[in-house]
Amino acid sequence: MAEFKYYWEDMQAGQVRDLGTITPTREEIIAFANQFDPQPFHLDDEAGKASVFGALSASGWHTCAMAMRLMVTNFLNYSSSLGSPGLEGIKWLKPVLPGDTLRLQSTVLETKPMSKRPDVGLSRNLWEMFNQHGHKVLHMEGWGMFRRRHPAQTP
Amino acid sequence: MAEFKYYWEDMQAGQVRDLGTITPTREEIIAFANQFDPQPFHLDDEAGKASVFGALSASGWHTCAMAMRLMVTNFLNYSSSLGSPGLEGIKWLKPVLPGDTLRLQSTVLETKPMSKRPDVGLSRNLWEMFNQHGHKVLHMEGWGMFRRRHPAQTP
Repeated sequence: MAEFKYYWEDMQAGQVRDLGTITPTREEIIAFANQFDPQPFHLDDEAGKASVFGALSASGWHTCAMAMRLMVTNFLNYSSSLGSPGLEGIKWLKPVLPGDTLRLQSTVLETKPMSKRPDVGLSRNLWEMFNQHGHKVLHMEGWGMFRRRHPAQTP
Repeated sequence: MAEFKYYWEDMQAGQVRDLGTITPTREEIIAFANQFDPQPFHLDDEAGKASVFGALSASGWHTCAMAMRLMVTNFLNYSSSLGSPGLEGIKWLKPVLPGDTLRLQSTVLETKPMSKRPDVGLSRNLWEMFNQHGHKVLHMEGWGMFRRRHPAQTP
């Protein structure tokens, strides 16, 4: 069955994908912070100005969640994705501000079969998010699990 | 001024803190997934049952965001926290299911002054989240920045 456009075999080291843009509003930034990261500098303009970020800024977790949204809508939902065992690193490099237009780019760093499951493979990916000024705001590396189009031959 | 209960000087390697519990509902899990991680196994019972997770489960980003909520409400908002430059790793170890009661525990792994800023110090922390069965569902390590109670003497 050719159920998905992308299987594990379609991930190859060096592939770069543009995964589109997302623009958080002030209201969305405050709503996320109220629910999950109610630190004053994510909720209030004055506290934002007084913070190291210099303005009301999005929770780093909100930035990650927005990157995931682009990844899912523009790639994973066309793939045989089985989820992720984890990430090797996240860097929040610049504040994300209301109205910023954030572009996600992903790069396949390496792929390998999953030893325990002949029908599944792994892909290690770099995620980079840039704002409208071309500044990188987010850098993540992590693993994804994908079903294989052709399971490995078991001996 | 003694504005906060905890400053950088109050973080010491080996400290363990219980940061309370949170229980996501089915509706909250689906709402988060709709907004940020609309993969079928986070949205739909049947797709969840067919997935490697075996049931409708929370987005890993939702789990991280819930951990952050406990960290902020029960610790960071009483501290001189200045945000985080990043994390060194995230492992999503077990699925988080509707109605799970998740407990967050944090451990200070190391602390060091920030070379560029005599008024700021860094703390590397382990975050572990356990479900009501005692199974660890989330393992994260990362850095926090905190204002110092007494800035370093500059030469």
